[in-house]
Amino acid sequence: MRIPLDRQNSLPLYQQIETYLRQGILSGSLAPETRLPACRQLARDLGVNRITVENAYSGLEADGLVFSRVGSGTYVLPPNPLPPVQKSSPEADWPLWQQSLQAHNIVAKSGLADEMLKAAGHAHPISFASGISDSRQFPADDFRKVLQAVMRRDGIDALDYGERAGYRPLREGIAHILASQGLQVPAENILITAGSQPAISLVAQVLLKPEDVILVESPTYNIAVDLFNRLGFIVVGIPMDGQGMQVEKLEKLLQQHHPKLIYTIPNFHNPTGTCLTGARRRQLIILADRYNVPILEDDFVGDLRYEGRAQPALKSLDPGGQVIYVSTFSKMLMPGIRVGFLAADGPVYDSLLGFKRLSDLATSTLIQRALEAYVTVGRYQAYLRRSILLFRKRRDAMVSAIDRYLPAGTAYDPPQGGLFLWLRLPEAMSADELLPLACEEGVSFAPGSHFFAGGSSGREWMRLNFVSQPAEEIEVGIKRLGKAIRRMSVRQ
Amino acid sequence: MRIPLDRQNSLPLYQQIETYLRQGILSGSLAPETRLPACRQLARDLGVNRITVENAYSGLEADGLVFSRVGSGTYVLPPNPLPPVQKSSPEADWPLWQQSLQAHNIVAKSGLADEMLKAAGHAHPISFASGISDSRQFPADDFRKVLQAVMRRDGIDALDYGERAGYRPLREGIAHILASQGLQVPAENILITAGSQPAISLVAQVLLKPEDVILVESPTYNIAVDLFNRLGFIVVGIPMDGQGMQVEKLEKLLQQHHPKLIYTIPNFHNPTGTCLTGARRRQLIILADRYNVPILEDDFVGDLRYEGRAQPALKSLDPGGQVIYVSTFSKMLMPGIRVGFLAADGPVYDSLLGFKRLSDLATSTLIQRALEAYVTVGRYQAYLRRSILLFRKRRDAMVSAIDRYLPAGTAYDPPQGGLFLWLRLPEAMSADELLPLACEEGVSFAPGSHFFAGGSSGREWMRLNFVSQPAEEIEVGIKRLGKAIRRMSVRQ
Repeated sequence: MRIPLDRQNSLPLYQQIETYLRQGILSGSLAPETRLPACRQLARDLGVNRITVENAYSGLEADGLVFSRVGSGTYVLPPNPLPPVQKSSPEADWPLWQQSLQAHNIVAKSGLADEMLKAAGHAHPISFASGISDSRQFPADDFRKVLQAVMRRDGIDALDYGERAGYRPLREGIAHILASQGLQVPAENILITAGSQPAISLVAQVLLKPEDVILVESPTYNIAVDLFNRLGFIVVGIPMDGQGMQVEKLEKLLQQHHPKLIYTIPNFHNPTGTCLTGARRRQLIILADRYNVPILEDDFVGDLRYEGRAQPALKSLDPGGQVIYVSTFSKMLMPGIRVGFLAADGPVYDSLLGFKRLSDLATSTLIQRALEAYVTVGRYQAYLRRSILLFRKRRDAMVSAIDRYLPAGTAYDPPQGGLFLWLRLPEAMSADELLPLACEEGVSFAPGSHFFAGGSSGREWMRLNFVSQPAEEIEVGIKRLGKAIRRMSVRQ
Repeated sequence: MRIPLDRQNSLPLYQQIETYLRQGILSGSLAPETRLPACRQLARDLGVNRITVENAYSGLEADGLVFSRVGSGTYVLPPNPLPPVQKSSPEADWPLWQQSLQAHNIVAKSGLADEMLKAAGHAHPISFASGISDSRQFPADDFRKVLQAVMRRDGIDALDYGERAGYRPLREGIAHILASQGLQVPAENILITAGSQPAISLVAQVLLKPEDVILVESPTYNIAVDLFNRLGFIVVGIPMDGQGMQVEKLEKLLQQHHPKLIYTIPNFHNPTGTCLTGARRRQLIILADRYNVPILEDDFVGDLRYEGRAQPALKSLDPGGQVIYVSTFSKMLMPGIRVGFLAADGPVYDSLLGFKRLSDLATSTLIQRALEAYVTVGRYQAYLRRSILLFRKRRDAMVSAIDRYLPAGTAYDPPQGGLFLWLRLPEAMSADELLPLACEEGVSFAPGSHFFAGGSSGREWMRLNFVSQPAEEIEVGIKRLGKAIRRMSVRQ
């Protein structure tokens, strides 16, 4: 085993060894049950004292990452799925029903990359792993004034339950915005939710029961897939290419799996950044109609277009009640605002409204009222225009940095909008294995494998968020990434 | 009677039965005065549990499609016109998957009484039907200033996702409040939710799957039961008396039904206003522990006590991880604030946190920060003390008005706290039948039948909210109620 050691580094050698192995274990590149080299052997390989290696191993063992069998060696344990459990008594004391829960608590993959970056301890870390836009751009002071004005204007009403479907003037404002994007939906068909995740959850729960099949693009938004899995659905992937979902492969999947829902992100797809072509959109609608399958259209950043022509929303091509459209102000504006919405026609609207009420009774009206005021006076639109100019520059900065700093063999399609650039590493290189090295260099990304519903696909891909950092940081971050890739190439 | 049942369908069996009968009644194929088969008989014919049939019948009864005569059976009523469905095109045009949804959209019972009151067109209507406290008391201006100060202080951070479990200082504030009520829970075991309904929904979804049995007090909070039904659980009632749940009847139910959860409201129960005695609390904990069943303790207004001594929370008697405690600021403070919380120990805490994140990603931090500031400066406590003084006067006003204006034969136990007074009408009088007369007189209430999970119990009961109106209005409202009762007596 080759571990890069830096004898000029202030970090003691045993800690360098320990950190390297820890990252390997946490990223999965050192698989569970892997036998680590014997201390004596590794010490010889690295030219260090045997005690140095023993210290490194015992640090890992203390944290439950490896275990040693006397006379047999040291083995990697499965990464601990749980954050340290806060409890006052040992595990065996929990009631039986609790012990059975413990077994299937899911490990969330999102956030892992940034935890690893933080753990690597770089003085000035740069993350491209985020799933949201740059919240530091948001004019919080403007919003504070709007909020203040709304509370003065509405008094106690601003803090009441309000209408079940959401604050009506905001629904009208949303209808207006959608109409300006070519999607005609009356305010009565809009339902406000606390972000787009609750909207996706609502639709999934109204339309599917455990063991039902849901079709999703492969790759796709990982937290949606985690949710579908947790709800007990069978998630089946539809292959993608540079033009989005490969709709020509859909019919066979529809015949084979009888899915209850197709979940799709047609604009600036997460994680690939692609847009579904117009012809494929029409074909998708026809197939959904023919096979009687509803479509959940997740348009989370459709309005963040930097160039090129927008394709019509699937919902606008909908012959009648086939498509449920979901979008959000959270990704674009401020995550903490927690306002999303869906648009649906027909009986399903009442089902969604009824289920939402049972799930959460109501969504806070105060923020809805403030958002409505913010949208109505045109500040949202101005903020959107400003964001588009800024994010386009950042995308250009990333594209230019990639061309300058990443080695030949990396590949990507420059995205025309949205938040993400989907990058392929040179042949046979694994993003999961690269991540610990990148974190050491002070940069993180979201490994592609996180976004594939099943199997071990996507290992050579990574998702880079190009809007969450200023252009100068992007340049530095991509340069570091290039260094990590070259270090890895040398090792291979 | 043959009813086609599809056990692969996402629709629970009781809803399939209910839908089939509903369509028969609405289409006229089941004529008025038709006697439906006895529950036991139909259950045997269809090979389902008797409770399944009872749930189906009670759904029909709640919607006024059938009525049951004790000892005689269940009969079809003449069909009632349904509320107009919003849609732009005739039913047959919706996709097939939508048409199947249409059949089982549940009609929410809560709110019906006030709709009826509004429809009756009285010049000055008075409602005792509300499920929440008097939001007009809330010092919105104070809260606006706190919110303003928090946004100035925290800037952009106030609008970010924040910690997954909720804003930490607020969790610490809640831990402090709970400790002052004798419940020791560290902030790490508290999870903030958008009100108590999402907390109940979260717990139910983490612990149960469709067809699992949940035990609830009978009667109980109707929106929780609607949720449990919608999630496909089998809801079984535990009888109550003036001291709360009849715990001595619990063991048999535990043996018979193997429930996955016991849902209880031990303090100022909704709808009955009763408090569970100390001895029964201890017995309940022992049984839950012995039968390995978790308890969901809904303490929605435990701190609104006007007199008498508080019993310890079930959670404070918990030997270790058996009880999940849920409470809220929404009922007490302001519905629109949408902040509730739960407290749980052990692996279930991580399961709840994980599922919450998948369901809604995060809860708005702005309101959490404002609430934290409001609680910390002691304003919440002052508001609580003021509310207790005011609500006690209103309770006294209602008790006194009932004694003066309602005819002999009505009965109630004066509640020591909370929001509700549970009133029994004179022998054989139905609150459901009284409601239209009461609305004509300009007063509404929540009929008792809305709160019983199955069967046709509670027809002679009603729930009166005594905190939502000033004392003078209470007097007028009860006087009108007395008039309606006398009109009904004459008719019988």
